[in-house]
Amino acid sequence: MTLTFDIRHRDGATLARTGTLHTAHGEIETPAFMAVATQAAVKTLTPEDLEKIGVQLLIANTYHLALRPGADQIAELGGLHAFMNWQRPLMTDSGGFQVFSLGAAIRDGVGKIADIFPDEPHPPPPSPPLPSPDEVQSGEGRGGRGAKGEALCQIDDDGVSFRSHLDGKRMRLEPENSIHIQHQLGADLILAFDECTSPLDSYEYTREALARTHRWALRCLEQHGKTRHEYQALFGIVQGGAYRDLREESAGFIGSLPFDGLAIGGSLGKSKKDMHAILDWTIPRLPEGKPRHLLGIGEIHDIIEGVARGIDLFDCAAPTRWARNGALIVSRAEALNAERRINISNARFALDRSPVDSDCDCYTCQHFSRAYLHHLHRARELSYYRLASIHNLRAMTRLMHDLRRSVTEGRFSDFRLAETARA
Amino acid sequence: MTLTFDIRHRDGATLARTGTLHTAHGEIETPAFMAVATQAAVKTLTPEDLEKIGVQLLIANTYHLALRPGADQIAELGGLHAFMNWQRPLMTDSGGFQVFSLGAAIRDGVGKIADIFPDEPHPPPPSPPLPSPDEVQSGEGRGGRGAKGEALCQIDDDGVSFRSHLDGKRMRLEPENSIHIQHQLGADLILAFDECTSPLDSYEYTREALARTHRWALRCLEQHGKTRHEYQALFGIVQGGAYRDLREESAGFIGSLPFDGLAIGGSLGKSKKDMHAILDWTIPRLPEGKPRHLLGIGEIHDIIEGVARGIDLFDCAAPTRWARNGALIVSRAEALNAERRINISNARFALDRSPVDSDCDCYTCQHFSRAYLHHLHRARELSYYRLASIHNLRAMTRLMHDLRRSVTEGRFSDFRLAETARA
Repeated sequence: MTLTFDIRHRDGATLARTGTLHTAHGEIETPAFMAVATQAAVKTLTPEDLEKIGVQLLIANTYHLALRPGADQIAELGGLHAFMNWQRPLMTDSGGFQVFSLGAAIRDGVGKIADIFPDEPHPPPPSPPLPSPDEVQSGEGRGGRGAKGEALCQIDDDGVSFRSHLDGKRMRLEPENSIHIQHQLGADLILAFDECTSPLDSYEYTREALARTHRWALRCLEQHGKTRHEYQALFGIVQGGAYRDLREESAGFIGSLPFDGLAIGGSLGKSKKDMHAILDWTIPRLPEGKPRHLLGIGEIHDIIEGVARGIDLFDCAAPTRWARNGALIVSRAEALNAERRINISNARFALDRSPVDSDCDCYTCQHFSRAYLHHLHRARELSYYRLASIHNLRAMTRLMHDLRRSVTEGRFSDFRLAETARA
Repeated sequence: MTLTFDIRHRDGATLARTGTLHTAHGEIETPAFMAVATQAAVKTLTPEDLEKIGVQLLIANTYHLALRPGADQIAELGGLHAFMNWQRPLMTDSGGFQVFSLGAAIRDGVGKIADIFPDEPHPPPPSPPLPSPDEVQSGEGRGGRGAKGEALCQIDDDGVSFRSHLDGKRMRLEPENSIHIQHQLGADLILAFDECTSPLDSYEYTREALARTHRWALRCLEQHGKTRHEYQALFGIVQGGAYRDLREESAGFIGSLPFDGLAIGGSLGKSKKDMHAILDWTIPRLPEGKPRHLLGIGEIHDIIEGVARGIDLFDCAAPTRWARNGALIVSRAEALNAERRINISNARFALDRSPVDSDCDCYTCQHFSRAYLHHLHRARELSYYRLASIHNLRAMTRLMHDLRRSVTEGRFSDFRLAETARA
């Protein structure tokens, strides 16, 4: 195994654990939250900012980077680490999530526009060149459709045909080339190419998609043996929607294959209870010694509940997206609600000289007042987006630090209780 | 005089000179280029970025800050230095330029939308709430008109009535309250409230406007004696369009008043030749010992020609605006044209591993390739705007540094020649 994972401490009462993942680009203390760098950049931030914030790991995206600037180009420029000048651990998603975000999410109207247009810094574009969820004709085949009715994403047993959300050009992803592109990008951790289903998919469709995802998992492993950089580790993805037998089957099957780590993806049901149940069905069937990644999850309570159920890795664009929209994370002491976020555009901050969070050690809280951030946000000054992103990402790295310490010191249940008491 | 200005070196062949301006918030080595912080922020940058870039002085705007967040609010928060956490020298413009940018510039179609909507980071808003130049009915009275024909700016002998470009609310600026607002903001250097005319204004109108500007200059001085912070210095503004006798009259009159410094504002004609002539008429009539500021000018050649004619201070939003639009300044050695700018969106940079300018010591050039900036710009990643702004502002501070050294070392004429040889 190219990746080694040392489990350091286990909580007595739950499945929570701390550990260290060793990669060719450094160590990751788990549980860890990774920042999202879809297009080879965490929005508004430099690698230096991320290091100061204490971000250990980034996740970039195969579909988006293959379209722009292109995998060959990044390979020619020395790989993603060199291209973006990030010398620490890096993961890439496989494009499997775009099967959902450009397909069923548009068809079913359950996606976020930010997943389709990651280059839009804040409000969505005035006239998107391609689909808005409303324009999509539902029910005709699998996949979302563009403004003119053409499919953005068509799934068959061998792979997925996309039409670029940028210019309509066709792109084909199959297990082999998704993995090969990820080898070209050169991230430390890469993900299998899967079919990410919708919460609205039927049992029958989800079962059919799961069979595909399992066949593709074998093809991903085969390709991984052929073209990887020695240091690259491949994670398998457990699917199965919110259906217990499918999740159990998938955890058993994917968990039995020689992946370096396991990810839990796809629809996590319609409520937090569903998500917890899915984790409870899945985790006990996964091999104990491999790292576990809960894909796309990043709300504070969801992270704590995920850790309690044995998750080691999280990624989510929400904290930085909240920041850009004015929602800043505050400490438990400052919080007025369970979500622990204030809306900086609120008029009550116009004359507030205090920092966003008086407990916070981030650059923003050390240098600027709520009043100034309120002004920058209202005035749509570009510096606002960076200062807010620094704060929210620092809030996430501090959360993960406190959470790891609570496990190490045998206080995880108290930590969890203190958080959920406000929920 | 609250401001002291030591002239250090003079060029033998031209009016170029170096000096030191001493303010309560530190020294400024002149000739200096100031960064534009219209809304109490230099777009995309923090004070720490600006210090690292070597920016000595910022200029913020009375009209924009009085509208949002409000002068009372900034005063209550301890003034502009505290509000934006910039502890170095600071200047404020008086609102006089908005008499032009919201008035004649719209009427005559000679303004830039960025002067009206400074909160728009890059492309102008999809549907501006207020005027576009095309919508303006020309010829009816002084001032631009909004989409519904209401005037945005009406000039009378006592002052100017604006309608807010943000929400249509009325705002009145007269010499007394422009100066009083600038006292509340608390910048080190402040500017008289004047009427900035258009290059299309007739001789008769420009003469009439100049008489107003001169009467207002006396009222500004009177107000300055009443409510200023001890450390604040007031600059008078020379107007008169491209009309020689008016410029000479204005330089003589404004130069004879007890201002701490002098600025040259308004229409600088229709060509670089006009601008040079205006400086040649004006400068010799200004007192030798006071600092001279050429308002709103920031092209490299214009700065060099301004220095040659005796200018000490420059401000211009163009270098950071160019940066956001993809135009990055390169050194003379790298330049292909007189403007010394490359368009980073050009496909020839897609695989270019070199920095923007291999001579440059800025953060961007030390850490990122042209290929990566090309990608970030095409993908409209927010981090692009900051990295590009850092580079272009550093290019300006390096230019000013080299220019000062050429004067100090008696090589200014060679320096000027080397630059203009490419023009």
